[in-house]
Amino acid sequence: MPTIFSKIIAGEIPCHRIYEDDLVLAFLDIGPLSKGHTLVIPKEAKATLAELSDESAAAIGRILPRLCRAIVKATGCTDYNILQNNGPAAHQAVFHVHFHIIPRFPEAPTGQQGLGIEWESGKLPQEQAEALSEAIRAAL
Amino acid sequence: MPTIFSKIIAGEIPCHRIYEDDLVLAFLDIGPLSKGHTLVIPKEAKATLAELSDESAAAIGRILPRLCRAIVKATGCTDYNILQNNGPAAHQAVFHVHFHIIPRFPEAPTGQQGLGIEWESGKLPQEQAEALSEAIRAAL
Repeated sequence: MPTIFSKIIAGEIPCHRIYEDDLVLAFLDIGPLSKGHTLVIPKEAKATLAELSDESAAAIGRILPRLCRAIVKATGCTDYNILQNNGPAAHQAVFHVHFHIIPRFPEAPTGQQGLGIEWESGKLPQEQAEALSEAIRAAL
Repeated sequence: MPTIFSKIIAGEIPCHRIYEDDLVLAFLDIGPLSKGHTLVIPKEAKATLAELSDESAAAIGRILPRLCRAIVKATGCTDYNILQNNGPAAHQAVFHVHFHIIPRFPEAPTGQQGLGIEWESGKLPQEQAEALSEAIRAAL
């Protein structure tokens, strides 16, 4: 199923383009959390990061610092979040990989401040940590 | 100022290591939001993504899909978030670039569910969007 992002990549739906190369497209989010909220997507149509090729993932990684510098310069933000959601329970709405770059303006009106984060952290008991890190390493 | 992550990279402080190469280290977060919460950091000591070299950023991007697949396999999660915070107002606490991989378990007890997100989005008026995308492109 093609998503709206496939249509944007194909030029069938317009976007406010920031950057494009052979593997990556970046454009303004039309439902921004803050001024300068940008989406960075691979041209490869994969729903989740786990499915994405190393090549596309590296290309996105490589361009993020440059995009961040430009967004900082153009918006005047000093702080910003990078967010990439996988799966409906993780707040993914369009099933084509996308990285959000979201400037943070804590003094702005509600709806223009950027990403709100709820941070309910726990502990990592030593025994569980050893078994878990071993299981993840074994799955690599 | 060296951060705790510089000391982890140098082996002066232990970690539950998941992955390491010449440019990147991944290990379990000791204050996890959920089971499998992993940090992926560059060995290059830079506070924010905007300051990071293209090479380190690409190396992190490249390894993310493989790490996600291993965490999905080892934890049984289906949904997960990638988060990278820049600046105190954006919830950054350690001033060495780090990408969080945070499995999402919406049915788990509070403190083990993963990342909570508050999504207060606005509109992107056409005129503002044209001027803003032009300003960001010019700053690239």
